Amino acid sequence: MNFDHAGVATDDAEGLAFLYEDLFGCEIAHEERFGELRVLFLELENGYFELLEPQDDGTISRYLDDHGAGLHHVAVETDDIETALGTAESAGVELIDEAPRRGAWGHRVAFLHPRSTGGVLIEFVEH
Amino acid sequence: MNFDHAGVATDDAEGLAFLYEDLFGCEIAHEERFGELRVLFLELENGYFELLEPQDDGTISRYLDDHGAGLHHVAVETDDIETALGTAESAGVELIDEAPRRGAWGHRVAFLHPRSTGGVLIEFVEH
Repeated sequence: MNFDHAGVATDDAEGLAFLYEDLFGCEIAHEERFGELRVLFLELENGYFELLEPQDDGTISRYLDDHGAGLHHVAVETDDIETALGTAESAGVELIDEAPRRGAWGHRVAFLHPRSTGGVLIEFVEH
Repeated sequence: MNFDHAGVATDDAEGLAFLYEDLFGCEIAHEERFGELRVLFLELENGYFELLEPQDDGTISRYLDDHGAGLHHVAVETDDIETALGTAESAGVELIDEAPRRGAWGHRVAFLHPRSTGGVLIEFVEH
């Protein structure tokens, strides 16, 4: 598997995108409204920063209230998300999503609970 | 630039490495004692998880006390770390390291302060 993106919770996706474009020489590859979120993907050579800005109440706005802006999750790409979830379950990992669901950019995604992955919110993503 | 690794603070690097090996089909590529830390690198196809386990008091043990285990930083690889730091400084980013220093695995590294990068602790790394 390989890194797909680092997800960042922010209250200013556009401002952060401008900064990261400068810092990393990257560009916005995709932007969408996803549920209550504005989502921006910045493309590095081998993966993305996903900037998540809430437009309304939800998990990211609560995350910002509780933790402030910053790293929210890491996404790892698999070409077979069902098998990846089965492996996780067999390893005793608690699944947030028992089955893949449609995520940003139309990808199939599923999250693992951080309390069983060393405190790291991990997303499996299948393009 | 490209993603190099996601740094994870943990109080059990070995246990977490066993789990991540299962979850992501990856292996330990490097292990060392770095200052007060035990550091394990797990190799994915296009980058690494860096597991940071304190063996003594220091920034990571304080991080664990304050935040618990989880994502600590993201490292972005550059082939010219001095230029990357100059660009960051010009963009108004606060540098933790004004000049590159020797990091784990013998790489040249420098950190940017999360208060000027959207709450994300960013490491530049030059191999």
